[in-house]
Amino acid sequence: MPFFLSEEIITMATGLKVYFCGSIRAGRGDVEIYGRIVEMLGKYGTVLTPFVADPNLTVHSAEEGKAKTDKEIYDRDMSLLEECHAIVAEVTQPSLGVGFELGRGVAMNKKILCLYRPQPEKRLSAMVRGAEKDGFFTTKDYKEEDLPAIFDDFFQNFLRRDRKDSLDWKSYEPM
Amino acid sequence: MPFFLSEEIITMATGLKVYFCGSIRAGRGDVEIYGRIVEMLGKYGTVLTPFVADPNLTVHSAEEGKAKTDKEIYDRDMSLLEECHAIVAEVTQPSLGVGFELGRGVAMNKKILCLYRPQPEKRLSAMVRGAEKDGFFTTKDYKEEDLPAIFDDFFQNFLRRDRKDSLDWKSYEPM
Ligand SMILES: [Ca+2]
Repeated sequence: MPFFLSEEIITMATGLKVYFCGSIRAGRGDVEIYGRIVEMLGKYGTVLTPFVADPNLTVHSAEEGKAKTDKEIYDRDMSLLEECHAIVAEVTQPSLGVGFELGRGVAMNKKILCLYRPQPEKRLSAMVRGAEKDGFFTTKDYKEEDLPAIFDDFFQNFLRRDRKDSLDWKSYEPM
Repeated sequence: MPFFLSEEIITMATGLKVYFCGSIRAGRGDVEIYGRIVEMLGKYGTVLTPFVADPNLTVHSAEEGKAKTDKEIYDRDMSLLEECHAIVAEVTQPSLGVGFELGRGVAMNKKILCLYRPQPEKRLSAMVRGAEKDGFFTTKDYKEEDLPAIFDDFFQNFLRRDRKDSLDWKSYEPM
């Protein structure tokens, strides 16, 4: 099974598993930036939820990845959330699903990075902005050009202590 | 153990505590229906979050109730969420905050009722629709006229076993 084999090799090489959250049914207006974020996250590890950035996945798609019913989507996503080492959420488009994943992620003590593009007449939820917790929950207001530095900084948290000098993301092992 | 004793007396006096969730910063278009829901919920117990239905509270309000900063809002809401017996969420307007509260509420094993008004071209998040769990998480598609029967049914879950025949909500004690 060449597909799974190669996926496993990637996971073994990169170590870290990242759960990426973005709006699906609340609106797909940011799907292109989700795609660029998922691509950047590939530098640090395996993204467990690449379907979130799939431009073919619309508000009305009958399935997400291989999950067909809402319960299958829910069960799969909660299982991936348990499995991940880090959660990265693009929170500019208000979405119940992203909020839910963040709430569950906080309860699981996951390390979480939220990314927000400030916009006139809009305001980020206090449930995100106020959840700030050193080393566990961070929200960054960003412009796209800031993302490489934001990610390098966030993923430093996952380097083993004896590897803090290393920025060779592809060869490190998560703590 | 006087602490537990007095807590029990308070609970008996005030009855059921309900945490109501609705969109604030993601949009206030449904604030009037939030107001009518909060009024209906008053039949069953004390609503811990009446400010969600306050028409003077806008996306840009500097404060919600007495909380002034986002961290104060977050800490207060998480404390009220711990305190409540039941969560009722109006989920028609996608909102990160409502999603977050639902995620935390599920992790706390709270009993949760979500209310959704189906609309053309819109679709409720799979993180809500797929979270259905008997006796713990229910989503109802509704029209406003359906609400009294939906609430009577949901709050039956909180009647003591020996009081299942009673619909005298104001005098019952939560399980
Ligand atoms: Ca939302």
